[in-house]
Amino acid sequence: MEYSREQLIEIVSGQMPAKRWKHVEGVMESAVILAERFGADPVKADLAALLHDLAKFWPVERQEAVIRDNGLNPELLEYDKQMLHAEVGAFISERDYGIADPEVLDAIRYHTSGRVGMTKLDKIVCLADYIEPGRDFPGVEKIRELAKLSLEEALIAGFDSTISFLLEKRKTIFPLTVLARNDLIRETKGLHV
Amino acid sequence: MEYSREQLIEIVSGQMPAKRWKHVEGVMESAVILAERFGADPVKADLAALLHDLAKFWPVERQEAVIRDNGLNPELLEYDKQMLHAEVGAFISERDYGIADPEVLDAIRYHTSGRVGMTKLDKIVCLADYIEPGRDFPGVEKIRELAKLSLEEALIAGFDSTISFLLEKRKTIFPLTVLARNDLIRETKGLHV
Repeated sequence: MEYSREQLIEIVSGQMPAKRWKHVEGVMESAVILAERFGADPVKADLAALLHDLAKFWPVERQEAVIRDNGLNPELLEYDKQMLHAEVGAFISERDYGIADPEVLDAIRYHTSGRVGMTKLDKIVCLADYIEPGRDFPGVEKIRELAKLSLEEALIAGFDSTISFLLEKRKTIFPLTVLARNDLIRETKGLHV
Repeated sequence: MEYSREQLIEIVSGQMPAKRWKHVEGVMESAVILAERFGADPVKADLAALLHDLAKFWPVERQEAVIRDNGLNPELLEYDKQMLHAEVGAFISERDYGIADPEVLDAIRYHTSGRVGMTKLDKIVCLADYIEPGRDFPGVEKIRELAKLSLEEALIAGFDSTISFLLEKRKTIFPLTVLARNDLIRETKGLHV
């Protein structure tokens, strides 16, 4: 079953509060700008951004059930509930909304955690989620500045802000985010903006 | 081959600058205090502390060779050179100095990284390394205060300081340290000092 972009907008925006939909629109806008800036496909960036938070406001039990009932990554169940929606979103995008492009599905799946070997599209959606115009957290301006020059440096700074926040809040850190950050540091070795 | 404590002191202190040996003495002193405070064996704590940094001032190439030639954890070779000496120290303690107690060897092996399921002795040596009297870094006083009440809370704060430092210095983070911190947070769930 194929849906048009307009139909997907209707479906996704109907599953979250208006404020969150505004965030999604911001991520779409930023993802397209980053795709154009760094030479990725803006249509894919727009689509992944549109879908990235589709399960964010589902009840946690429903998200956990999707993970359990479909054999998705069980490690996610051991961490903060915020870690569930990306994997669920990718799964639902494929199963229910006919998204078949693995690049788009991966960008949805890894938009919160990152991963080792992030594709350009992964980086763009993950970074857009940090810097979309509605975001306002300590350090976001620095990340926006870095995003003008380097996708990787900006994303390292984004992950740094997440890890610092988790340290401060005495929360567990999802290990893949640390591996993703390590990988970006190695990828940019010698390059310091 | 068995060595007396005095012989081990001579052997270990001969492999590092006087300043570092002073640090080792500080760790021995703090480890014994922590063992008495939290109900571990002070003799084992003293021995593990004595040996924990034995390879710290070996040339990096020699440390790497021990890892490679003896099939030790190869992941260590991908991270900061500071990560090598603990594993090397445990191996040499067993092979060359006749230390057979797995608790002591593990406390040496994991004193820098931590691990999932840290024993009380692991925690004591790792924490003593953070708070021995010669240490002076931002936050050490807070860790010393926590160490009066809870081994786990103090160690979480120690790992937090390490991770913050690595973020600031744009260095990779050894994943096991994050897993160790996550594990301590779960172990102390509900307990906030």
